[in-house]
Amino acid sequence: MKATAIANANIALIKYWGKRNKELILPYNSSISMTCDGLWTKTTVEFGDYPEDSIVINDEELKKDEKDVLGHVQRIKKTAGITENAKVVSESNFPVAAGLASSASGLAALTLATTAAAKMNMDSKQLSILARQGSGSASRSIEGGFVEWLKGEKEGGEDSYAVQLAPKEHWHDFRMLACIVSESKKATSSRAGMAQTVATSPYYEGWLGSVDNDLENMRKGIAEKDFTLVGKTAEANALKMHATMMTTKPAIIYWQPATVEVMHSIIKWREEGLESYFTMDAGPQVKILCLKKDIDEIIKNIMELEGVKKTIVCKPGDGVQLTQEHLF
Amino acid sequence: MKATAIANANIALIKYWGKRNKELILPYNSSISMTCDGLWTKTTVEFGDYPEDSIVINDEELKKDEKDVLGHVQRIKKTAGITENAKVVSESNFPVAAGLASSASGLAALTLATTAAAKMNMDSKQLSILARQGSGSASRSIEGGFVEWLKGEKEGGEDSYAVQLAPKEHWHDFRMLACIVSESKKATSSRAGMAQTVATSPYYEGWLGSVDNDLENMRKGIAEKDFTLVGKTAEANALKMHATMMTTKPAIIYWQPATVEVMHSIIKWREEGLESYFTMDAGPQVKILCLKKDIDEIIKNIMELEGVKKTIVCKPGDGVQLTQEHLF
Repeated sequence: MKATAIANANIALIKYWGKRNKELILPYNSSISMTCDGLWTKTTVEFGDYPEDSIVINDEELKKDEKDVLGHVQRIKKTAGITENAKVVSESNFPVAAGLASSASGLAALTLATTAAAKMNMDSKQLSILARQGSGSASRSIEGGFVEWLKGEKEGGEDSYAVQLAPKEHWHDFRMLACIVSESKKATSSRAGMAQTVATSPYYEGWLGSVDNDLENMRKGIAEKDFTLVGKTAEANALKMHATMMTTKPAIIYWQPATVEVMHSIIKWREEGLESYFTMDAGPQVKILCLKKDIDEIIKNIMELEGVKKTIVCKPGDGVQLTQEHLF
Repeated sequence: MKATAIANANIALIKYWGKRNKELILPYNSSISMTCDGLWTKTTVEFGDYPEDSIVINDEELKKDEKDVLGHVQRIKKTAGITENAKVVSESNFPVAAGLASSASGLAALTLATTAAAKMNMDSKQLSILARQGSGSASRSIEGGFVEWLKGEKEGGEDSYAVQLAPKEHWHDFRMLACIVSESKKATSSRAGMAQTVATSPYYEGWLGSVDNDLENMRKGIAEKDFTLVGKTAEANALKMHATMMTTKPAIIYWQPATVEVMHSIIKWREEGLESYFTMDAGPQVKILCLKKDIDEIIKNIMELEGVKKTIVCKPGDGVQLTQEHLF
């Protein structure tokens, strides 16, 4: 009745932006991501004679705004018919401020650890559907390499899960460089940001109308390892997502001065022959997409910018796995 | 055969963004502006026995990329049946880097001076239609105070001209503060930017679908001197325009780090009770909208920001006028 799972974070190349069903977390559009090697959350779950369900994340008791996490454990307990309480301990090895959704790796690890402790034998599709209900982007961290979360059409969400487009070995020299430009907590969560976008942006229709073309280009770019196509498509898609947010009421502007500084620098270096592209999620940090051969020069350049505090590099990584190294 | 006209720049509160006819400069949407007191261009035109048409702007011979200006003079000559050549001398009292379209005041002054030198007796509607063909936003600088450029429906453009919504006296304590954050020449002209938006942005339809509501709110706000409504509407409209540009191919990002710094500062100060709003045109400069009672505090605050180089304040001003002070 005890299991530990480790899951990597993922970075969306085509963004998940907008829910058609908030309870089941069903998206309006499919999304594509890279699972990030070495940016992991490890979670141990044990069912036993505990007075209540409890969760400790990075040595801290669960905060109120993390009640979703407890709800996720209880959802799985209910499905498995488990009446004992769960003790959950979780650790991540990357800073929350990196702007790499810790909820993705966190909920993916939690999903596998909880189902394994409950002796539920789930395949990756089932795990992805379950993880999705905890946090949308967690559905993608179930798989390794390059991943597509299919939006699905069904009301119950049984066709809304992630599939692997290509394993990490397919493109081992692809790199993502997270540039941390601000460590202050963002004002609007991505969950609130996307709800506000769907409700008030005059551009959300334009987002949905153009995302299928982005998905098609991204699938092609990944299959053919066409870095220019992948980079251009990811950058344009991120700008489109941020553009929708700036047009919500009230406006959500996640960019900070240094965000813009990094963006312009990347465009300038690219014009000079150093090819990289940027993407940003619901926050100020910039994630740079590049190839292994250019990473050293890009890090050197980027660290000279006044606004960049630190960087984290990663390559394509594995999907969620069980491990024997329990946390308690 | 000699006349001098003086015209003020204008700042768009609801932006002109996208041409339905590039030759006649007919817009897809109506726009609303404030004519800016004291930010003027003065232009003297004389017809005479000159070897060719010539234009000197701010003591410099016309550059190649200003050929449109010469074309405008020739358009008027043709209409008036004038065969003599024109000598044109023009001066502006504000820096081009202010991001206040010098083409608006320039083409408005040129239109009145040229038609007056040609002894054409034109009313303000005719002047606005003619100025529009030189530079779209120049159509608005014909009128003073608060101005709407009606997009019109006709193919020939005879119903696309500016009308005054309210004279400057209506709202004498309205202020616009231009914050100069960058003096480097922008990479993309607004003319090119809007053409690219119409051709490639998936959000341009959303722009057109939502601008009528903005126009309605702005007319109401001006009529009722409802500063909150005017400010909110202008800020949201500017963000929408910039959001369309970020989604063109390739993306146009006019914002610089200091642009974002000023935007966030204005939002923060507003939350603290100091009410002002921002707007940006096709460039990095931020224009702050506020009331006279707050201008000193806003200037003091804004000049403390690292990225702001200087500021220019103005209030509602007059439309184009003839003057006896010839430039030569």
